[in-house]
Amino acid sequence: MKAATLYETGGPEKVIIEEKSIRDLKDNEVLIKVKSAALNRRDLFITYGLYPGMKLPCILGADGAGVVVKVGKDVTGIQEGSEVIIDPGLNWGENNDFAQQEFRILGMPSDGTFAQYVIVPSSNVYRKPDHLSFDEAAALPLAGVTAYRALFTRGQVQKGETVLIPGIGSGVAQYLLQMAVSVGANVYVTSSSEEKINRAVMLGAKGGVNYRDENWAKTLKNQMGSANLIVDGVGGPGFNNLIQLTAPGGRIVSYGATNGPVPNCVMPKIFFKNMDILGTTMGSPRDFENMLTLYEKYELQPMIDRTFSLDETKEALMYMGEGKNFGKIVIRIE
Amino acid sequence: MKAATLYETGGPEKVIIEEKSIRDLKDNEVLIKVKSAALNRRDLFITYGLYPGMKLPCILGADGAGVVVKVGKDVTGIQEGSEVIIDPGLNWGENNDFAQQEFRILGMPSDGTFAQYVIVPSSNVYRKPDHLSFDEAAALPLAGVTAYRALFTRGQVQKGETVLIPGIGSGVAQYLLQMAVSVGANVYVTSSSEEKINRAVMLGAKGGVNYRDENWAKTLKNQMGSANLIVDGVGGPGFNNLIQLTAPGGRIVSYGATNGPVPNCVMPKIFFKNMDILGTTMGSPRDFENMLTLYEKYELQPMIDRTFSLDETKEALMYMGEGKNFGKIVIRIE
Repeated sequence: MKAATLYETGGPEKVIIEEKSIRDLKDNEVLIKVKSAALNRRDLFITYGLYPGMKLPCILGADGAGVVVKVGKDVTGIQEGSEVIIDPGLNWGENNDFAQQEFRILGMPSDGTFAQYVIVPSSNVYRKPDHLSFDEAAALPLAGVTAYRALFTRGQVQKGETVLIPGIGSGVAQYLLQMAVSVGANVYVTSSSEEKINRAVMLGAKGGVNYRDENWAKTLKNQMGSANLIVDGVGGPGFNNLIQLTAPGGRIVSYGATNGPVPNCVMPKIFFKNMDILGTTMGSPRDFENMLTLYEKYELQPMIDRTFSLDETKEALMYMGEGKNFGKIVIRIE
Repeated sequence: MKAATLYETGGPEKVIIEEKSIRDLKDNEVLIKVKSAALNRRDLFITYGLYPGMKLPCILGADGAGVVVKVGKDVTGIQEGSEVIIDPGLNWGENNDFAQQEFRILGMPSDGTFAQYVIVPSSNVYRKPDHLSFDEAAALPLAGVTAYRALFTRGQVQKGETVLIPGIGSGVAQYLLQMAVSVGANVYVTSSSEEKINRAVMLGAKGGVNYRDENWAKTLKNQMGSANLIVDGVGGPGFNNLIQLTAPGGRIVSYGATNGPVPNCVMPKIFFKNMDILGTTMGSPRDFENMLTLYEKYELQPMIDRTFSLDETKEALMYMGEGKNFGKIVIRIE
């Protein structure tokens, strides 16, 4: 089979498209013909060696959807020929509250979805929602389950609440927007790009501000009031503004910190408000299943920015590095 | 009546014992003959002007217990002659999740319990638990309700969990210890005083470390493992150690920050663990009532370090300033 493999770090240029053999199935595993895969920033970080637990060589890719072509000996309930979507979370463990130490994401260290075929445990395979194309289904898993867990399992979002999503350019943020709007929250966003703010408003956000403006927090406060829930993947100095923007009894769910540590966190602002700061990573099998249910109930569709071929994986990763996409970058695989 | 009044800031020396008249009762108020009052660090901070919303002159004191001598026109269910304990939280509001903006603590700006008589709204008056003396009842309210809300309402402590209480010297921390031990948690403490650690162990803690030791966090980790729940009133640089010491899916409840802001808070440590940081202040009327129920159920007794007379209020505050007490400082009022 053809596969996008990384033998050494150094950026997207190091990704090699090559022929690889398909290994034998273990008893509980499933072999899937990948129809579409999708990119996450994780894949880009891995090409630079900037991800914990680097182990190469490896076929990249966490997100994928396709058709089951073979099932292992112990697998029940999954038919060959089924159209499926893959949960990229491996070994979450028994407790829905947190992932066990053995938790890994598909596509480093284990071989991922940027290939004609991928092997995953049968418990990671779900029926593809009928209203989604393979491209759309492939765009959903990693960012979608992260957003679902952050917004619902951890954030407990309620209809009519004011929800702030900083950094609306990211993949997870766009799923947050889509899900929060679908359940009737009043959503506000921040971005460094006026265009992305406008796109968010077209997708149902009530408003947004450019965080490059010096007084963004004050402007946002005037526009939005206080937020009942903030779902943040940015961290950094701006996190202290988010604490200020939280309503009494409100909560901030943190799933990332692309802007680094939070300097000088003033606890009284947190405790006088009786507010919560809730950490979350990726999502459990239950979160993945509940996310699919939500997508079917509201017939939500992942946003796709652009599609590449498997041969163009390198170019797709470089395009992601430019940060101009709004919506997922998909790799369509023949 | 005799009362300990502050006309100007400058420390405990500025407290004046003087005769004051008792004002008329409003319809929903109750006049209480104070039998015992107790000190909180809040009272000391107020004498130095180091408390938000300073408004003088004022009779100090948040904590008190006594006997009802007169009830206002609209008051029902409270008899003259009843022995009562006072909830010092005024105007919490309707939502148990957070205090409304009008929330105040008794004893600045409104006149407090360091006096022969105090007037409070009837909704702040509760029957004194039979097993508590007036001294013990007076020692309970502010620190007790703060600890109750932190440990139960916010922290959701469970039997068998590992609970860490940093800075066991504080009044709130000692109530946390007592309550956590009573419901079967495995409690560990930190302190700068070996003596206080030993006292905590005598009171049911499983162990503790001196946070002046450079490797205190490592030593504690070896002793305790990870904590399911940390209830912290210290904040400061050590808060990052607390994040490290929290188990996956665990929570830190923050009710104070005597050591100031938390420098450089690294969010990935929070989100990879799916942990919670939960702010809490004081407690709601429901918390106060539930705390009394807990104290009656387990027949818990507040710890009293030393008793002073009303005439010695100044000396009592100075003694608190020395920080050597373990247990509450009580003012017994004739």
